[in-house]
Amino acid sequence: MTHTEQLAGFLADLRYEHLSDAVVSRTQELFLDWLGSALASQGSHPIPLFERYAELMGPAAGPARIIVNGRSTSAYFAALVNGASSHLVEQDDLHNSSVLHPATVVFPAALAAAQDLGCTGRELLLAAVAGYEAGIRIGEFLGRSHYRVFHTTATVGTLAAAVAVGKLRNFDAAQFINVLGSAGTQAAGLWEFLRDAADSKQLHTAKAAADGLLAAYLTADGLTGARNILEGEQGMAAGMSSDAQPQKLSDRLGSRWALLETSFKFHASCRHTHPAADALLGLMQREGLSHEHIERVTTHVHQGAIDVLGRVDVPQSVHQAKFSMGTVLGLIAVHGKAGLPEFEQFALNDARVARFRDKVQMQLDAQVDAAYPQRWLGRVEVLTVDGRRLQGAIDEPKGDPGNTLSRPELEDKFRSLLAFSGALEGAPVDALISQVWQLHQRPDVHSLI
Amino acid sequence: MTHTEQLAGFLADLRYEHLSDAVVSRTQELFLDWLGSALASQGSHPIPLFERYAELMGPAAGPARIIVNGRSTSAYFAALVNGASSHLVEQDDLHNSSVLHPATVVFPAALAAAQDLGCTGRELLLAAVAGYEAGIRIGEFLGRSHYRVFHTTATVGTLAAAVAVGKLRNFDAAQFINVLGSAGTQAAGLWEFLRDAADSKQLHTAKAAADGLLAAYLTADGLTGARNILEGEQGMAAGMSSDAQPQKLSDRLGSRWALLETSFKFHASCRHTHPAADALLGLMQREGLSHEHIERVTTHVHQGAIDVLGRVDVPQSVHQAKFSMGTVLGLIAVHGKAGLPEFEQFALNDARVARFRDKVQMQLDAQVDAAYPQRWLGRVEVLTVDGRRLQGAIDEPKGDPGNTLSRPELEDKFRSLLAFSGALEGAPVDALISQVWQLHQRPDVHSLI
Repeated sequence: MTHTEQLAGFLADLRYEHLSDAVVSRTQELFLDWLGSALASQGSHPIPLFERYAELMGPAAGPARIIVNGRSTSAYFAALVNGASSHLVEQDDLHNSSVLHPATVVFPAALAAAQDLGCTGRELLLAAVAGYEAGIRIGEFLGRSHYRVFHTTATVGTLAAAVAVGKLRNFDAAQFINVLGSAGTQAAGLWEFLRDAADSKQLHTAKAAADGLLAAYLTADGLTGARNILEGEQGMAAGMSSDAQPQKLSDRLGSRWALLETSFKFHASCRHTHPAADALLGLMQREGLSHEHIERVTTHVHQGAIDVLGRVDVPQSVHQAKFSMGTVLGLIAVHGKAGLPEFEQFALNDARVARFRDKVQMQLDAQVDAAYPQRWLGRVEVLTVDGRRLQGAIDEPKGDPGNTLSRPELEDKFRSLLAFSGALEGAPVDALISQVWQLHQRPDVHSLI
Repeated sequence: MTHTEQLAGFLADLRYEHLSDAVVSRTQELFLDWLGSALASQGSHPIPLFERYAELMGPAAGPARIIVNGRSTSAYFAALVNGASSHLVEQDDLHNSSVLHPATVVFPAALAAAQDLGCTGRELLLAAVAGYEAGIRIGEFLGRSHYRVFHTTATVGTLAAAVAVGKLRNFDAAQFINVLGSAGTQAAGLWEFLRDAADSKQLHTAKAAADGLLAAYLTADGLTGARNILEGEQGMAAGMSSDAQPQKLSDRLGSRWALLETSFKFHASCRHTHPAADALLGLMQREGLSHEHIERVTTHVHQGAIDVLGRVDVPQSVHQAKFSMGTVLGLIAVHGKAGLPEFEQFALNDARVARFRDKVQMQLDAQVDAAYPQRWLGRVEVLTVDGRRLQGAIDEPKGDPGNTLSRPELEDKFRSLLAFSGALEGAPVDALISQVWQLHQRPDVHSLI
């Protein structure tokens, strides 16, 4: 059996009863965290463009729901708009070693299809687990060379979304092979947009979720796909990776739950900035420093951080600021936080943050790079204005599995995300939270949001 | 100015008045040829799957039309289904040096958008020219290394479709830059499916047309894209090519009309089989040979032919047979033709064709390979049962620009395509043909089909 066939067999055989309480509980937490990210983007460019596109091209009503405006539509357009929405504020989850943001591609597709097909909460949770387990392994399989040019959440996200929807449609192993083929041959998404602060990140997650759903629906109806889209000579690894490791695809299927390794985001910035942000914050608290005491900051980083963040010198937009190491550290140093409100108020307009930004440099570090992507080490060196050299280090950024957010912290984050956009407040927020904590008992997911 | 910026400027400035009569006339011919290909697929798997998907996910009615079933829908789903339809019977056009099939991606998107926007026949023709000129140059830019793993018609097709729709929306140069960015970051399509005779080819062209249209509509509404998606360090060439030539993007813009270099397909098979098919047919006619006189055929081919055709030993489906060099030459040798009816009747079920298939081998030829992809040379060597070694050669396969199909030949091909599927016959076919020859005078294209 190929590794792809082993993966397909696992996906076909997976049952809700196989999931531990910890997996179910974490899936609910990931769902809540995702929902908050989607609602936080309400009204922000470019989300209304996707809403208008769905209105123009889709049906006037349908079984699935667009989260940011409450309109009903077909499953395809719900997946599209919700996929765009949930990655905008850079608060959605991340799996370290695959460098995949699973929630923003898996949940939009799974929720839209679950609403369309009349599935239960348990079926939705099971589908999400399938999407996470497959997507994370495929991301690990494609390796670091893939991520250097391709936005893994876009490319691999198409397959993760397809698998989740395939699970809702009760695919057997042969159908999972076909859906991987049809999703993999649609996989796309390049990092080039970062340099221009273009809107492609939202296009990527929108399309990954929607294209994955499309692949699954067509597969259910009989469309065939390449049997070996991942490992084959003219497949994804052949075209889009130079360090693919096929055995990653079937890594400890059924005993390792990769979903549990997912990190929640604490800062509202690109995850590559978090280890340095936490290390700097710890150092400043330990030494009692304010931003004015600091002359220079050197962050010792992995190559991926340089590839993704290195494009931005002076950010031109709030979104681009989330990819500026200097700006993130400036917010941390000056305001003690780099959350959504700090980005909106201070990322572009605060002279102190701008001054601090120019004091920050990134430097490739062999040890940090070797640990990546399994571990995201934070190492900073600070030169103070009075000439001292100080070291800050953290081994697990806030939000990582070993340093995760508690349910109260997740609820706080959720409330703060909703307050940010004004999407919802007060009692309805509490009701929504408790609905998510009871997701495994819901007979349907139509009225969830 | 980058080459991409030069291309964008050309596209923005292009006017119908710039097009010579030859260009207009050829565009009409390409449109007719495309329309025939789309109608020929009516009822064939997997086209009904795309029709059902459009019905499930799209609106019940709309301004654009699905060709194979006459239903109206939104522009997005018309582009999707018509894109799937027009590549199935392997009779659509091809541009040699880009190895791009432009019609099957450009016309579905352009026609759907023209119907949606209420454009004239002239505007549709101009948009198609823009799509061809851009798509062909982008295909040439990405080079042979891209085509080795990626289905250029899928990847580059997304950009060609986007450009055509952008022209209908009167994009300026900045918008063309943006739409290339948003289309390029969606570009996908791998050859891996060929080995399994999977249905991905239709998915590829469907998605290229629809995704290109989506990119253009979102761009018109304000979505930004990477400014340098083609040439940039994390762009298409960086991720999907190792021999890209940026100067190809701006090659003789305004003086060279790449659209005129497009070939019409004569045989109903993959274009990589055509040079050998014509060379064998010429040799057999010249020497008065029948298939029974032939012991062995060696086709001297370019590497691309081996990459695309080498997967198939014994075809399992009619579609896969179109990628079997042995089957195509068997049809030519036994039946004198490799048209749609011959494929349906004889490709899988004729023992003489199967016997001949096993006599055929492909061999990489340095001279043929060096000429490719600018020229597709046909070179075959035949060993007869009585021990003679005979050579057949053609320098321009039937349908190539220097050996093109006349309007009567194109009309014959069109009639035969429509008769094949039973889509239309008799007087309505003649009316349709004359409408296409008058396309430049139509005030709208709603009622064209």
